[in-house]
Amino acid sequence: QLTVDQIEEVLTAYQERYLVLMKDKYINYISIFHNHGVEAGASIAHPHSQIIATPVLDPKVTRSLRGAREYYKHHKECAYCLMNKWDIKDRERVVYENKEFLAICPFASTSAFQISITPKKHLPYFEKITDKQRKYLADAFFVILKKLYKGLADPPYNFYLHTAPCDGRNHDYYHWHWVIEPKMGTMAGFELCTGIEISTIEPEKAAEYLRKQTI
Amino acid sequence: QLTVDQIEEVLTAYQERYLVLMKDKYINYISIFHNHGVEAGASIAHPHSQIIATPVLDPKVTRSLRGAREYYKHHKECAYCLMNKWDIKDRERVVYENKEFLAICPFASTSAFQISITPKKHLPYFEKITDKQRKYLADAFFVILKKLYKGLADPPYNFYLHTAPCDGRNHDYYHWHWVIEPKMGTMAGFELCTGIEISTIEPEKAAEYLRKQTI
Repeated sequence: QLTVDQIEEVLTAYQERYLVLMKDKYINYISIFHNHGVEAGASIAHPHSQIIATPVLDPKVTRSLRGAREYYKHHKECAYCLMNKWDIKDRERVVYENKEFLAICPFASTSAFQISITPKKHLPYFEKITDKQRKYLADAFFVILKKLYKGLADPPYNFYLHTAPCDGRNHDYYHWHWVIEPKMGTMAGFELCTGIEISTIEPEKAAEYLRKQTI
Repeated sequence: QLTVDQIEEVLTAYQERYLVLMKDKYINYISIFHNHGVEAGASIAHPHSQIIATPVLDPKVTRSLRGAREYYKHHKECAYCLMNKWDIKDRERVVYENKEFLAICPFASTSAFQISITPKKHLPYFEKITDKQRKYLADAFFVILKKLYKGLADPPYNFYLHTAPCDGRNHDYYHWHWVIEPKMGTMAGFELCTGIEISTIEPEKAAEYLRKQTI
């Protein structure tokens, strides 16, 4: 329910806090995330985001970096840039795009109505986002969150950033992106037992449904 | 709220269904799990378990098998047998034990009040459980579930089995065990973003609390 300008201010705060935290030489990774609704783990009622700076690279970002690095090494091309190209051509999984960003329901969505927002340009480091890019990112967040609000009746949700670590190494192969996950189900025995994720809708169907929501 | 005899019947049903399903040559892994309470993803109200037979080995059991196999190769000893020895000596994390089984809050619990029930003997294949062992396992489940019911006020929970695959290969290095996880929190942005699990109580404190619950 924020305006585009308000969202832009939130994104500016993310960037500014990131730039301060990364100066600490013990900090190698900075996680930014947001929880909305009790079912999505929000512990206080008003809108708020969280930023956690750690000396370690967590397991999930480590896997993501390794995949991106290996793909880049073998194919001399960024996997995210390639996915963007496919999705822009395919259209089926695109929920929204503007000049700088592409919002899709990923081909291998790990939950129903999962959405990623990815820069169209190859950008590894979120903290280097320009004023102009930030405006377009605010627009993409505005449209996507409005569509979720309308289409899924104000669902609880989480979103988070995956970006290149600030550990002083070269991560030019990486491509930052935001992942938005409405809380549509519960991790139950099967997921705990197997580590297999279940989504109850094809990403193409989810994207089609969200495209149709007028805002 | 089942009696020990009723739990034994449920365990017998697990074993019998397992033995039938594993005859299919396309089946390489069989997952058994149980959800209790809406918050733990139970989709029907009466007590029920689920069994899922798959041609693939899922990511979580694959990691568990790899860890156990590598430990066994390097140390000529089963990691679970060693952990059992430590915990029996330490006492701090033991919730309950009988002649055949040890129930502990694991040293590296991935959630609050997580409990594992592990055979004291080195047993790789759950489906080979004997009548006598099954009686002791029913007793352990009875005591643990009663303690959770009393101590945590009938919490929603999941439990699941990790056992050697039925893929025809030798998995003698593995050690089957049940994991019981009361649903004490929500996977929120931090967990989704990082893959890091949060537990809100030390396993030693959780075990102490559960030991004190009379049944």
